[in-house]
Amino acid sequence: MSERTDTLSDTDAVLAANEAFYEAWEAGDKALVRSMWLESEDVACVHPGIDPEIGAVMLSTFDEVVDQVKGTGTQFFVSEVEVSVVGDVARVVCVENCVTTLPAELQLVDYSRLGTTNLFRRTPEGWRIWHHHAGPVVPVLRPESGE
Amino acid sequence: MSERTDTLSDTDAVLAANEAFYEAWEAGDKALVRSMWLESEDVACVHPGIDPEIGAVMLSTFDEVVDQVKGTGTQFFVSEVEVSVVGDVARVVCVENCVTTLPAELQLVDYSRLGTTNLFRRTPEGWRIWHHHAGPVVPVLRPESGE
Repeated sequence: MSERTDTLSDTDAVLAANEAFYEAWEAGDKALVRSMWLESEDVACVHPGIDPEIGAVMLSTFDEVVDQVKGTGTQFFVSEVEVSVVGDVARVVCVENCVTTLPAELQLVDYSRLGTTNLFRRTPEGWRIWHHHAGPVVPVLRPESGE
Repeated sequence: MSERTDTLSDTDAVLAANEAFYEAWEAGDKALVRSMWLESEDVACVHPGIDPEIGAVMLSTFDEVVDQVKGTGTQFFVSEVEVSVVGDVARVVCVENCVTTLPAELQLVDYSRLGTTNLFRRTPEGWRIWHHHAGPVVPVLRPESGE
């Protein structure tokens, strides 16, 4: 967590921050996840199925989400990761392949495959997560467009 | 489209770019929407229900999406808009309240209410859209957390 990032390229540092975020989440470690968020009132999440949340409300919901996962053996296999860094902002586009035993009543959507946007901000302590947005990928083929 | 943005505050200019994006989409104006995208290989979309797409593939899909909407009277009522500008990147968090007559077989998800992340980049020609991510809000109450 407190590793200096300036010995890695930006991209590697962002990838590491992204992986660390999911590892802390899988571990159900609420305090660790909290420490990864940017200290800013405009941290934001768009969780699958619920309205966008910003700031303290979002952090509180995220605590619940981490608590829900704790002890369920939930794992995120993150794939198709693309990183773009623009100044002090980094965008990660990826897919969360989520394996979970979370009770069905807590699953508002199909959690098996989620298209995801994560945004990170550069800080003196390294990259901090600023924004998380995940939504379900529907396991059907799209209609073919007419040629 | 070609208005200079430096006569507006960043926030106002980003709000205007966000509104213009939805207006062009509603109008089914493929060429106009295309002109609003950042000229960059890493433009990205996470549409509801399908895998994240980046670059030329995404632009091609977006053309289809705009075509699908054309003539359907689809309207986006965008609400709960929050803008954050960090250097040359702007993040918009909002809700798309979508009214559509799009045929059901083209609707992979419930299109009535979508939690949305839009990212814009500052260019000499104004703010250009860099990233669009929308996912359905499920019209059910979340389980109450135990107090």
